[in-house]
Amino acid sequence: MTKQDLFKQKAARAALDYIKDGMIVGLGTGSTVSFLLDYISEKELDITGVTTSKDTSRKCRALGIRVVDIDMVDHIDVTIDGADEVDAYMNGIKGGGAALLMEKIVANNSKTNIWIVDETKVHSVLGSFPLPIEIISYGSGKLIQNFEEKGYHPVLRLDNAGNPVVTDTGHNIIDLNLHYIDNPQELAEYLESQVGVVEHGLFINIADVVIIGGEQIVTHNRKQ
Amino acid sequence: MTKQDLFKQKAARAALDYIKDGMIVGLGTGSTVSFLLDYISEKELDITGVTTSKDTSRKCRALGIRVVDIDMVDHIDVTIDGADEVDAYMNGIKGGGAALLMEKIVANNSKTNIWIVDETKVHSVLGSFPLPIEIISYGSGKLIQNFEEKGYHPVLRLDNAGNPVVTDTGHNIIDLNLHYIDNPQELAEYLESQVGVVEHGLFINIADVVIIGGEQIVTHNRKQ
Repeated sequence: MTKQDLFKQKAARAALDYIKDGMIVGLGTGSTVSFLLDYISEKELDITGVTTSKDTSRKCRALGIRVVDIDMVDHIDVTIDGADEVDAYMNGIKGGGAALLMEKIVANNSKTNIWIVDETKVHSVLGSFPLPIEIISYGSGKLIQNFEEKGYHPVLRLDNAGNPVVTDTGHNIIDLNLHYIDNPQELAEYLESQVGVVEHGLFINIADVVIIGGEQIVTHNRKQ
Repeated sequence: MTKQDLFKQKAARAALDYIKDGMIVGLGTGSTVSFLLDYISEKELDITGVTTSKDTSRKCRALGIRVVDIDMVDHIDVTIDGADEVDAYMNGIKGGGAALLMEKIVANNSKTNIWIVDETKVHSVLGSFPLPIEIISYGSGKLIQNFEEKGYHPVLRLDNAGNPVVTDTGHNIIDLNLHYIDNPQELAEYLESQVGVVEHGLFINIADVVIIGGEQIVTHNRKQ
């Protein structure tokens, strides 16, 4: 096991403190959350899960974690998810695993959002990680051209076979290579106004707690 | 034939003045555009069509109108589409035929946009026609609840069999019964910021010409 995996495990294990029996828990997507699912299963926590991807649903079924559709519950107590990058203001980039849309829908309906990350994900400013944009395939060539003209260095994400990645909701993904996102809120509003953009990977003012796994565990907490 | 259909035909026929041989023409969706397609075919106009729905693509094929994918052309000379409602500022509501997303993508990539409507579609203020919102089905119950709390009177659109309507791009439609839209731009920005909303049926600052068929033909033109 790599050091990074050990740090992911530490963050995932620390998140267990926020889960109590009987809770409705949003379950993110990705390698760090995958460790969390293992721990929830091992500890036989009596939770109801609401998932953010078909992949996480499959893992839950394999591990015996109960899963329901988001519209079957009237609230979500806490959602625990990973992030691809987190900045000093607890804003983040998500979508490296192509699940950003369902992740954002679940986060948006959760009382508390907790991110679990290893220390390599934390940067003072966002943009090192390419920003995933979930898009409609119809007219995507025009949208990419538009992003190129803005200097966003867009790349249509392809799968191993060289075909455009298709998300669980049937869309494609463009990754924007921005390197340095000066004003995430302004960029978010611009992207939301673009026709053909379904959702973007900027998660602003969403995380309440960020648990960072490294040699030590550090948590960042947003004052309400 | 009803009087309304005659008025639709008049508007559609007047739109032919904007189409020249050799043009790349965006072709809308709906009953008024359907008349236009008939005329294009009858006159054997030598155009290349970019369509806004599977329905329009099918009709074009049946009529012998050449159709290409939007990403196969480097521009669209003119798009001719209908509208469900048009206000005094040439803003409109579209999406009654559930094609608003592809219509907006095509409109957004067109040099000139022309709407053809019968006189019943014109109101001083938008909102008589329910505003269609194209949404992600995952979490749609939560989104509807959210719109209910805002007083928007949302209704999930169903097909004849009682199932949610599925658009050509795989989404559902919620119709908002607003009656009077005070500030379309503000509402558009609010809707664009909502997670789970793919696109909305407010078309603001898009139409360059509105051709209104009635006892007479009237055109509205936007000064650039």
